[in-house]
Amino acid sequence: MTNGVRALVRRTHEERVLAALRAHGALSRSDLATRVGLSRTTLSEITASLLQRGAIVVADTDAAVRAGSGRPAERLALDPGAGQVIGVDFGHRRVHVAVADASHNVIASGRDEYENGTPWETRLSTAFELIERLSRETGVHYGALQAIGIGVPGPYTGKTSDSGSVRWKNQLMPDGVDAAFAERFDTPVFVDNNTRLAALAEASTRSDVVDNLIYLRLSDGVGGGLVVSGRLVSGTRGFAGELGHVTADPSGVTCRCGKRGCLETVASVPALLAACRERGVLLETLDDLAAAVEKGDPVVDVVLREAGTAIGRVLGAAAMTLNPREVVIGGEVIRIAPMIVEQAAATIRYELYPIPAEQPLVVRPAQLYDNDGALGAIAAIFHQSPLLAGYPEPSAPVEQQQSQRSAHS
Amino acid sequence: MTNGVRALVRRTHEERVLAALRAHGALSRSDLATRVGLSRTTLSEITASLLQRGAIVVADTDAAVRAGSGRPAERLALDPGAGQVIGVDFGHRRVHVAVADASHNVIASGRDEYENGTPWETRLSTAFELIERLSRETGVHYGALQAIGIGVPGPYTGKTSDSGSVRWKNQLMPDGVDAAFAERFDTPVFVDNNTRLAALAEASTRSDVVDNLIYLRLSDGVGGGLVVSGRLVSGTRGFAGELGHVTADPSGVTCRCGKRGCLETVASVPALLAACRERGVLLETLDDLAAAVEKGDPVVDVVLREAGTAIGRVLGAAAMTLNPREVVIGGEVIRIAPMIVEQAAATIRYELYPIPAEQPLVVRPAQLYDNDGALGAIAAIFHQSPLLAGYPEPSAPVEQQQSQRSAHS
Repeated sequence: MTNGVRALVRRTHEERVLAALRAHGALSRSDLATRVGLSRTTLSEITASLLQRGAIVVADTDAAVRAGSGRPAERLALDPGAGQVIGVDFGHRRVHVAVADASHNVIASGRDEYENGTPWETRLSTAFELIERLSRETGVHYGALQAIGIGVPGPYTGKTSDSGSVRWKNQLMPDGVDAAFAERFDTPVFVDNNTRLAALAEASTRSDVVDNLIYLRLSDGVGGGLVVSGRLVSGTRGFAGELGHVTADPSGVTCRCGKRGCLETVASVPALLAACRERGVLLETLDDLAAAVEKGDPVVDVVLREAGTAIGRVLGAAAMTLNPREVVIGGEVIRIAPMIVEQAAATIRYELYPIPAEQPLVVRPAQLYDNDGALGAIAAIFHQSPLLAGYPEPSAPVEQQQSQRSAHS
Repeated sequence: MTNGVRALVRRTHEERVLAALRAHGALSRSDLATRVGLSRTTLSEITASLLQRGAIVVADTDAAVRAGSGRPAERLALDPGAGQVIGVDFGHRRVHVAVADASHNVIASGRDEYENGTPWETRLSTAFELIERLSRETGVHYGALQAIGIGVPGPYTGKTSDSGSVRWKNQLMPDGVDAAFAERFDTPVFVDNNTRLAALAEASTRSDVVDNLIYLRLSDGVGGGLVVSGRLVSGTRGFAGELGHVTADPSGVTCRCGKRGCLETVASVPALLAACRERGVLLETLDDLAAAVEKGDPVVDVVLREAGTAIGRVLGAAAMTLNPREVVIGGEVIRIAPMIVEQAAATIRYELYPIPAEQPLVVRPAQLYDNDGALGAIAAIFHQSPLLAGYPEPSAPVEQQQSQRSAHS
């Protein structure tokens, strides 16, 4: 190997060691070598360099759990001082805060409400007070804060404007909300659309992150988010995942966006209630809808199944385009009308007929609820950390080949 | 900053330095510091470490181009010995080979034909002979070969099976083609679907890689590929970008995949010719179609525009989902019937109406032609190199914040 290739391979090994420690917590060098598939000698070189640079620390020894009589082995871990993360989700009517430690454990969480239309200054101070209250209530003192992730409604590119403040398309959030958090907590701040963060949270609900996932949320509007190759996708201008404005019915009614027949005109909560009313079932609220579903109203059943079919067509096209592992449908209406997910799943199955089905796509309702944006903001911090950018990386044959070759050499 | 965060920041800086050298070739430390936005002191620490590890080398000094009287400055560059890459594209009827050096310059290329259905042993030996012939003809001797990229028809996940050979869905390619290349050239081998590689090649035709691009190819079948956040997307099982089997007309004719009204049943070359024949214009080949377009046949014009509208609906939904910078339509039919692209562009514009249009999506015909798969295979190697995985990274606010803070500290 040339020196250049050697440096490539070494860096790849470092990334794998860090990813294993992040995923599994403290590990001995021997466990690490097994998990990342390196020789003990190579692994020791890698960990020596990482220890010297302070990226990892010696956590303890395995004396307590060791069965044999040999010398206790040191266990290595990511520097826990770099681990505390706060997730904040600003909704239209409430802010949700969650705090996680380096092991991704949520160590505090809570929410406060405000009126729809509340100015951002007030939302900010509500969030700051909530964060302080959580500290008082739980004893968490934010001494090891690594970063803050913030979810906001509306499209968001994640890029900064020339002034260094946020370029914010629809003026829902004024410039400087991120700066206010950065200044108050003296920490890096990450901002993204909160539906997109909810998608990441759904992809992270199990120990293995789902590498490819499409998330749709049915609420007052219809939004969505995409996880592609293990990473959240924003698109060129922050609109990726706007599944609510994909055309579901070209001859449908006019949408608030100006187009005809967007999915939102068929599948949002107001659209569902209106469709029931048009067929003579007078429903005003989600509670009314829940009662009608509970009663087994056949007209309501037809409306919900038709919506499920439209959702399935849009999600089916997206799934044929992206070939995800999971499609997740969320929003409060899913809890009271699960047949929407069933019907959508049937339509998606048909749309994906050309794809061999040994490992079929999973179509499921969302697992998380009100805290999904805050948990997603935390997940985004952990995943977007430069050290872990690109992990998990589902297809890296060049790396695989290189490590196979170095294992043989 | 804790040591952990310091290590994160340092690694980010290293990645930026390497990315700048890869994109711009040899640069002085002073130019590098400006381009990556670091202080001279920080930059010198970074480059010293990279030089010591062999990832970069001192290429020359700027004495030849220097205007002032000061001491000539060293110019740094990526190790050129790590740079040579071969791209191979196996089509149904020909193999195309291109060879690039570390600066991404194509230094040799050529093609050889074989019959449709030729066994893989023969395709392999044809490719090996072509690679040797290119060496004889151009003097390139593959002494600094870094990797080989291979494009193949059909879905491909890029993952290896338990046996270490390729898990290949539809048996178009037998296990071991990648291994045969790896053994013969003693080098890492990367394999992907060749339409997907063509998408990457189209995204790489200018100096800046297009970070988000949807590519559709109209040929005997209809295929596609996606570049998302600067990276090629394979999907969970290798089917990402299969836009030919998104439903374009739910009540349309049955597709060879078993579903109804797939885009392929409307927009493939055989489908276009059949639609013309159904309306009384007897066309058998692409040349016939070219002559009819040339003549301005109004029936053919209607058929092509209807196909353009169907293509636009499918691409419009994909573009609303992914918010790309460019949509590219390729395949030989585009060269003789450019109105397909015009019509598709009009439909896509309508579908994207909800997205503010200051920086409108570009819809364009493909720039590359027969060599797109081989060039894409080369681009994939350069982009998938572990050192550069994740670059260009369009949204990394955590990194930005961190580098802002370190610049202030």
